[in-house]
This record gives sequence, C-alpha cells and structure tokens, in this order.
Amino acid sequence: MGSKEEEEEVVESREWVLSSYSPQGLPTSDHLKIRKVSLMIGDNVIPDHHVALKLLKLSVDPYLRLIIIGRQDGLYLPQVELNKVVKTFGVGRVVRSKDPGYRRGDIVVHPFLGVVILFPFFEVADYCVIPANSLRKVDPTAGISSSDYLSSLGLPGFTAWVGMQHIGNPKAGENVFVSAAAGAVGMYAGQLAKLKGCRVVGSTGTDDKVKFLKEDLGFDDAFNYKKETDFDVALSKYFPNGIDIYFDNVGGKMLEAVLNHVNRHARIPLCGMISQYNQVWNDREGVRNLLNAIGKEVRLEGFLAGSHLHRFQDFTTEMEGYIKQGKIKSKYQIYNGIESFLESLTSLFSSSNVGKVIIQVSKDEEP
Amino acid sequence: MGSKEEEEEVVESREWVLSSYSPQGLPTSDHLKIRKVSLMIGDNVIPDHHVALKLLKLSVDPYLRLIIIGRQDGLYLPQVELNKVVKTFGVGRVVRSKDPGYRRGDIVVHPFLGVVILFPFFEVADYCVIPANSLRKVDPTAGISSSDYLSSLGLPGFTAWVGMQHIGNPKAGENVFVSAAAGAVGMYAGQLAKLKGCRVVGSTGTDDKVKFLKEDLGFDDAFNYKKETDFDVALSKYFPNGIDIYFDNVGGKMLEAVLNHVNRHARIPLCGMISQYNQVWNDREGVRNLLNAIGKEVRLEGFLAGSHLHRFQDFTTEMEGYIKQGKIKSKYQIYNGIESFLESLTSLFSSSNVGKVIIQVSKDEEP
Repeated sequence: MGSKEEEEEVVESREWVLSSYSPQGLPTSDHLKIRKVSLMIGDNVIPDHHVALKLLKLSVDPYLRLIIIGRQDGLYLPQVELNKVVKTFGVGRVVRSKDPGYRRGDIVVHPFLGVVILFPFFEVADYCVIPANSLRKVDPTAGISSSDYLSSLGLPGFTAWVGMQHIGNPKAGENVFVSAAAGAVGMYAGQLAKLKGCRVVGSTGTDDKVKFLKEDLGFDDAFNYKKETDFDVALSKYFPNGIDIYFDNVGGKMLEAVLNHVNRHARIPLCGMISQYNQVWNDREGVRNLLNAIGKEVRLEGFLAGSHLHRFQDFTTEMEGYIKQGKIKSKYQIYNGIESFLESLTSLFSSSNVGKVIIQVSKDEEP
Repeated sequence: MGSKEEEEEVVESREWVLSSYSPQGLPTSDHLKIRKVSLMIGDNVIPDHHVALKLLKLSVDPYLRLIIIGRQDGLYLPQVELNKVVKTFGVGRVVRSKDPGYRRGDIVVHPFLGVVILFPFFEVADYCVIPANSLRKVDPTAGISSSDYLSSLGLPGFTAWVGMQHIGNPKAGENVFVSAAAGAVGMYAGQLAKLKGCRVVGSTGTDDKVKFLKEDLGFDDAFNYKKETDFDVALSKYFPNGIDIYFDNVGGKMLEAVLNHVNRHARIPLCGMISQYNQVWNDREGVRNLLNAIGKEVRLEGFLAGSHLHRFQDFTTEMEGYIKQGKIKSKYQIYNGIESFLESLTSLFSSSNVGKVIIQVSKDEEP
C-alpha cells in the first residue's frame, strides 16, 4: 500500500473495450481490444462519493458472452455499448477516496452480487473510478478470502444456492445430476446437494475434472461427457434409479437426454445453457422430448439469482457457515494480468478450466 | 329399456380391437379393426359384482393415439395389448347386473376419471361386461347431462381445471394463451381463465372455430394458426403485452414461438403436445429457445390430471356450480355408431372437430 503510483495524479492503466459485437462463435481480438489509457485520479478529478480502485481480482463468468452479441438474447441481458469498457465483478484496493466511508488501502468488493444489471461493475481494467455506494468493504478478520466473495459467496455460489435449494428443493436420498459440474456454479450446486444427503453425479469435460469432482469435492460419481458417444447410455449407467433433480448448466442435447431419465416429479432448475451461448438462434439444438415432462410431471424452471436478493442474507449466513466449517470447497482457475481477459473468457467454453475463473490483475497487492 | 335383446342370454356386439401397433402417422384399419362378437350376458356367465352395459356414449381423446404406438412414450402410458379391445370412458345403461348396487336401466359413467390407468375402462364396443366398482350412477335429477360427465365434469374438464388453476394460477388481468383452444380441454381452460378475470386468446385450426371461440365461448380473441405463416408475428399481434400463462396443448413450434413472448415469471402448464403425437421421436420438432425460460424465469410444468385426484371433489363442486349457473359452456362433436371409432380418432388430428369428440353408440337409448 501507498506505493509511489498512488501518490500520482495520473496512473497508467489498461482496459478492455468492446470494438464490435460477436454474434456467434468465440469472440476474438476483432471484438474485444485492450487499450492503454492514462487515468486521472487526482482529488479534483474524482467525483464526490466515488473512489479510485486498483483492481486486484476480476471475475470471469459465462454470461459475459451474452452481453457482447449485439442483440437481445434469451437471458435478456443489456448489451455492452460499442467502444465502452466491459465490466464485471471484482476485488479492488482503494487508491483514492472521495467518500467518507472509504480510505486508501481498503479492500472492497461489489456488494449484492445479484443486482448485476442495476449497479455499475468494476471495469475490466487495471484501475477504475466508481461510485462508493456500490461497494462493500472486506473485513480481513472474518476468515473469508477475497476470492470467496467472487465465488462461493458471490454470483456463482448464490446462483447455485438459489437453484438447488429453492428451485430444486433436494431431499435426502434423491438422485441429483449437475452438468458443467466442475465449473463455478456446478461445483457449489453439487456440494450443496451432498450436504442435503443426496446422491450427486456430475458431468464435465476432462478426466482430470472427473477426478477432481470425485476426489476433491466428494461427488458420488462423475463422467467426462466428451467420452460418451450416447448420453442416454451414460445416464442409464450413472442413474440406474433415475434423476430427481437436474441442475442444468448446459442445455441442448444433455437436457434432452436427461428428459429420458427423469423420475416422477423431477425438478430441473434451468441455470445456464453454455452449450448454446456461441450458437446463433437457428443453429441451436432443439429439445425434442418435452412430452416426457408431461408423463413424468416434471417442472423445468428458469431462474435468475438477481430475483432472489431477498434471500441473499440467508444465503450468506448459510454459506459462510459452511465455509468456516470446511464443508464447502472452492477451486480457482487463475489467469494472470488484465491482458488475459480475452483468453480467460474464451476458456470458459473449452473445458480447460477447473472451478471459478478469476483474473489476478495485480499479484502483489492483496493483503 | 327392457327391449327384447336385453332378455336374451347373448347379444350381438361389435368391438374395436388393436390388430397391430401404429408407431407413426395416423392409425388406419390396418391397426384398428372392428369385429362382431356374440357376447354372453346370462346371469350364470357374468361374474359377481360385475354388470353388463349397453354403451350409449364413448369419449374419444388424443391420448388414445399414444397407447397404440407399441413403445413407451412421453406420457408413459401403458400400451394396449395386441388383439385386445381398446377401452375408453363412456356412458352406459345397465342391461344385466350381478351387483346389488345396480339395476337394469341404471345409467352409469366411469367414476373418478383421473385414475384412467388403474381401473378398467368401458370397452369401445356396443356392449361390455365390467366390474361394478368402477362405476358411478348418474342422478337424472341433478340437471347435469350424461355428456357433461365425459366432458366438463370428466377428463377434459378436470385436466383443464388442474392445469389452469393449479399449475397456471391465473390472476385477474393476466394475458392467457390457449392452444388447441376449441378442443375438449382447451375450451374449458380458456373459459376458466376468463372466469378469473384474465384476457384470453386461443389458437385453433379453422375460421369457424375462431368464430366459435370468440362468439360462443367469449374468448377475447382467437386466431387460425394455419393462416399464420409466422407464429412470432401472430403472437406479437395478439399479445402486445406478452403472455403470462400459456396452456400448452400442442407443443412443437407453437411452444417455441411462445417462449419468445413470455412475460417475467410466466407459467406454462404442459398439458399435451398433439402436434407431436403422430411423429416418431427423431422427427419431432425441437424447442430451441429454452434459454428464454431462464431470462424470463419461466416455469414449464408437465402435469397429469390423475395425480390430482385429491382435488377431484373440489373440482366437481366448482365446475358443477359453473355449469348450473351457465358460466361454462360445452360443445360436442358427435360421431354416430361404434363403427365411427377409427374416423373419430383420426379426426382429432385434422382440425375438423369443434369441442369434445363423443361417439353416440346408441342413439335411441339415452334417457
């Protein structure tokens, strides 16, 4: 803290700007460009009730893919404007403050992570200036790491909790299937179901992640969907007694296969459909067997964590308890430096990551 | 009553037998054959606690298509065995009774129509012998027609009531869309939503039925889906404020289009998918935009009326009240004679019917 640059009126920063929309496929450097800027952070420049932050960590999540496609899509997310800096969740250190609640050196995170659409985010940059009312100070004595605020206690953890507890409503002994299970949301969804006494099986995209789910997270079983030529056969094998809850992170063919293995009154929290995010509408895989949802009286229910903010305090209490008792584990996939943003974003669609993807913007600054 | 034939020990009957399964397309006389039989109805032949019935009316419903395909399908209905007589709901007159609760001349219907799978049906025949414990006597003084027991108070009415009231949960002012709205279930689903103060629009397959929905049933609007080249455009026109409840009787492309027009927290009771019943699995139309169900937090919920039998008495009370007050109207499409069974069944998929399809097995026998 208190390094020389923070005494300056101007800092050299890099920031990621949306140069053109990316309607399908993976975004490239044609769409997202990094640029250098000199950011004015003098006291006479920063507005009242704003702070200047040096970013320490930034969160990289799949929904980011859907805010740079240039059209309304299924999540109805507002699109990033062209030539604007992309925003996300993060952890930052205050380098200048024009708000009485914050001092230089405070570590801050975004407050209630469900309200992603309503509040300004942290910019995908080395430094940014943002309103202080969108921040929460991290208590260094609470025994919670700053990464937890981006993961288990952040959007992924809250999303998993809402979907599993409030949409899925697991009961001891039920059979629970989680897709993209080694991803940020999936790893918490599966662990929460285990804590309720369910039998939990996850699908993921590499053998290493299969091992991670079984050995590190305590899933009852897991499989590499890329090695399964027929999802129906795989689900018959892993769910001889059928599926009671399917926490759907992928959509498409896996959802269709699951509908052939659902038990009566199964619940399917629709959380994400990452298999479809890079597809244009007409190329998306249709689900042809919704008729099964009638015969087995299945409920498919889409949800957004942001609509359950009235439950955020309950979530925080429960999840912090689990974390302190060591009952919920987290794994992070760390990318280094703000320059890794594009790579880390496209990596979300490549099976190459384990756990929550985080950019370590500044290595040497975290307390 | 007391006609000569009923004094006989043997009656000449015709019955419909499943000759071969019909996996796709419309069933034909290759699959369903009518045969003549001499049915023994002497007191020494009928088992105790059974009655012999002369059938007066029989109910023809879309699910019948799914019990002659020869494989498990999405509704998980047990298949008719080959060379067995097809069964359905009906109204009959007792011609012989070996049960103290029934006398010759009693008019009877099937009791709790949701338990279709558990109890014996009336055979699709001129006469049949069945257990008395599966019957309910019609009270001729109650002011309810015997057709009502097959329609508004039967499987179609109960299905509409469960789906609209308990899955859809309509609130005054909401926008409700019903597909196959001039069909047996659809006409009640729409009227029940109107009674809750909703704005109701139906889709159907002919201009005459559009007129029927608007002028006879009081729908706020209706359209002929066969004249719409683009369902998205049609739904934009008929639902400028979006759709809060979609009572889905058809599945496929219409469900996909609806998912582009749903309001936040819309409910979609999945009742039937008649557009898909004649298709083999791989030819079925996939729903490609389930991602919209996440962004709008939509609940799609399959249901079977048979799982809500604990509500049958509530339903009966409410629906009988509406019928007696003239608040629920019924329309019947009558086919004459047991020989019309195959024609009436295939007609369900042709848009040619208005209202509940009923076979008038015997014209001159109803009280």
